[in-house]
Amino acid sequence: MKSFINVGPDCHFPIQNLPYGIFSTSDNPRHRIGVAIGDQILDLSVVKHLFDGPLMRDKQNVFEAPVLNPLMALGKVAWQEVRARITELLSLSLPTLRDDLDLRKHAFVSQNDAIMHLPAAIGDYTDFYSSINHATNVGIMFRGKENALMPNWKHLPVGYHGRASSVVVSGTPIRRPNGQTRPNDLEPPIFGPSKLLDIELEMAFLTGPSTDLGVPIPINQAQDYIFGMVLMNDWSARDIQKWEYVPLGPFLGKNFGTSISPWVVSMEALKPFCCANVSQDPKPLPYLQHSDPYNFDINLQVAIKPEDSETQTVICQSKFKYLYWTMKQQLTHHTITGCNINSGDLLASGTISGPSPDSYGSLLELTWRGTKSLTLENGSTRYFLKDGDEVIITGYSQGDGYRVGFGSCTGKILPALQLKCQMKGFYF
Amino acid sequence: MKSFINVGPDCHFPIQNLPYGIFSTSDNPRHRIGVAIGDQILDLSVVKHLFDGPLMRDKQNVFEAPVLNPLMALGKVAWQEVRARITELLSLSLPTLRDDLDLRKHAFVSQNDAIMHLPAAIGDYTDFYSSINHATNVGIMFRGKENALMPNWKHLPVGYHGRASSVVVSGTPIRRPNGQTRPNDLEPPIFGPSKLLDIELEMAFLTGPSTDLGVPIPINQAQDYIFGMVLMNDWSARDIQKWEYVPLGPFLGKNFGTSISPWVVSMEALKPFCCANVSQDPKPLPYLQHSDPYNFDINLQVAIKPEDSETQTVICQSKFKYLYWTMKQQLTHHTITGCNINSGDLLASGTISGPSPDSYGSLLELTWRGTKSLTLENGSTRYFLKDGDEVIITGYSQGDGYRVGFGSCTGKILPALQLKCQMKGFYF
Ligand SMILES: [Ca+2]
Ligand SMILES: [Ca+2]
Ligand SMILES: [Mg+2]
Ligand SMILES: [Mg+2]
Ligand code: NI
Repeated sequence: MKSFINVGPDCHFPIQNLPYGIFSTSDNPRHRIGVAIGDQILDLSVVKHLFDGPLMRDKQNVFEAPVLNPLMALGKVAWQEVRARITELLSLSLPTLRDDLDLRKHAFVSQNDAIMHLPAAIGDYTDFYSSINHATNVGIMFRGKENALMPNWKHLPVGYHGRASSVVVSGTPIRRPNGQTRPNDLEPPIFGPSKLLDIELEMAFLTGPSTDLGVPIPINQAQDYIFGMVLMNDWSARDIQKWEYVPLGPFLGKNFGTSISPWVVSMEALKPFCCANVSQDPKPLPYLQHSDPYNFDINLQVAIKPEDSETQTVICQSKFKYLYWTMKQQLTHHTITGCNINSGDLLASGTISGPSPDSYGSLLELTWRGTKSLTLENGSTRYFLKDGDEVIITGYSQGDGYRVGFGSCTGKILPALQLKCQMKGFYF
Repeated sequence: MKSFINVGPDCHFPIQNLPYGIFSTSDNPRHRIGVAIGDQILDLSVVKHLFDGPLMRDKQNVFEAPVLNPLMALGKVAWQEVRARITELLSLSLPTLRDDLDLRKHAFVSQNDAIMHLPAAIGDYTDFYSSINHATNVGIMFRGKENALMPNWKHLPVGYHGRASSVVVSGTPIRRPNGQTRPNDLEPPIFGPSKLLDIELEMAFLTGPSTDLGVPIPINQAQDYIFGMVLMNDWSARDIQKWEYVPLGPFLGKNFGTSISPWVVSMEALKPFCCANVSQDPKPLPYLQHSDPYNFDINLQVAIKPEDSETQTVICQSKFKYLYWTMKQQLTHHTITGCNINSGDLLASGTISGPSPDSYGSLLELTWRGTKSLTLENGSTRYFLKDGDEVIITGYSQGDGYRVGFGSCTGKILPALQLKCQMKGFYF
């Protein structure tokens, strides 16, 4: 399958991918739905009239929305029709778009000229904790080897509700948070900028159709409610988190920003990379059991680029497929009490650490709680993030001669606000 | 101050109150903004043209919204202009509405004929844990008297992010959740309906104007971001919560439903009931200090009405003013890291327990972890909720000859779904 748009073998956006995103341009600030192809974006709002299949004929208005939610709400059969049509329209063999030079002029935007936005209005954001390596590492650090995994961990996908308002699109700078910490247990807590600012390498999925309150999603239907996936960085202030999180869980240590990649790769595009689930022992309760594979072979990488350097240093290489719990199990568990979902909810994996030290998905683990430093290519060292550091997460699945990629999820650390001086009202 | 609408001394909705809500009627399903007065609702969408003050003249469209968010986003000075105008329009002395019988016919709806809806599109919901009596009671039960309060509790308002999608308006039935529990630590976990279904007597506030990510709200401005308050019942499945919540906090044990009262009482209406803050020792860090009183004298009551009984039994009488942390402290703490808020976020108090056993705000505390039963007026006993139980929370502030009330927040427990039999897909 080839497109009339030129795509190199390492490009993340061949015709096999076709991820959805929301973009605008300097000459047209309207937020609109695009599909990435090569280094271009196909503006679906311009070609919406070409979606004339049985399901989409009367639903072309979803391509005029400023977010993906209405498209995601249509459900799996509609998604398939949309994807099939986009594949046709971009293929080398169909003249409809290929030979209509005027339409092409209006329908394509260079990715270089596009400003990307949050792909969805995110109603609720949930963060799981589904990497056994990550949970074990953190457990060893804080509770010792004997009690590393909590008793519930292998019985259910542990998770918590996160803050939706502060989910931002890749490229948004992240300000180092101020907050309350207690570095010395014998002294009172203190206030100031977080000193232990960290990343969490994660992926997340966006939900499709909504459900009604009181009605859980059976595990054999969970895949129908999963639209697609993004890369995610769950920025974490470890010192704030440590002091606040008992007994109700992470709160301010996580709510100052969560970055996601702008391109949503559909589950349809990831199908060729579906691989075996991790085997689970003990077997989970029946409501969480499924035998169909719903794991995905996605290569993930984290790099840091210091402010004064042109060079990125790769600090972690991990894989999505290391995760113990599947997205189907996460979604069914989340709704088993009757909790309803809305189109565009964001459910994240938790930090994706692999078995080897170079695959750990957080600085907490990579520097083993700040006990050994990382050396970057410019010679500087890191325990946690410094102001000016840019963190770049990338990910892709490798096909035969092509890649289905997620692009990147980046964010640069701004120095903390000096509240006393910079902010009216903070006089103390 | 009197209205031309008749209001008795015990009525929750005199002209001193004027709470906002969203309603529809059987003959007009459109969701619209109303103000409760006596047993009537003034439909603001019908009288929007009468808001001709300097700020509202060009903003009358907020009264056509199906939620309060646009009104709440306008900020404090606009809220004051709106309230002053509604007070005038409803007063006995102004003829504009009083003597326009045709307008009155269209502008007033009996509360009996109204269907109430969620007052706002709630972007994010946060639940605090700000009652020292509640936190101490729970601490004693689970950790013993010595370590009842966690070390952080008096230094910051502990809270966690909750699930916004399942916040429902008073009157919505609540289905008993199914879920995973581990009643016996020596046996594997089991699956089934929660056996320890509980209430939490809470109040919550809705936020006004939005803020930008990265910019905290100083405590001396926090009151400008608080629009008004509602009653809340944070339904809780104690057995699910107990097994899941370590280490990331409450998740499914709380996400199957959270009920709020339909009428939002503005902070302006609560001003006469402002009372001294609880004294805090140790003094919190400067960013959390404020000397202006921002506590409120609100009487709260919880009753249970079993399905087969016409009689309610009051099981708890508490007061909002028992809370240790103020709403200003909660909001400033929530945003101190730079977490942004949107208009219509819901921030809840946590269970409001008072010092005496009859003022405890949860069955967990009232029956002391199920060790002593409550006897209801029909002779039946309760440790936790039974199917068919209706829980009725009410609250009001007592003025001189009038009450500023919140109406009620109710919910009736439906039996759990029998997933095997009733739901396609759950075959196990
Ligand atoms: Ca995380
Ligand atoms: Ca609560
Ligand atoms: Mg985060
Ligand atoms: Mg709840
Ligand atoms: Ni008329």
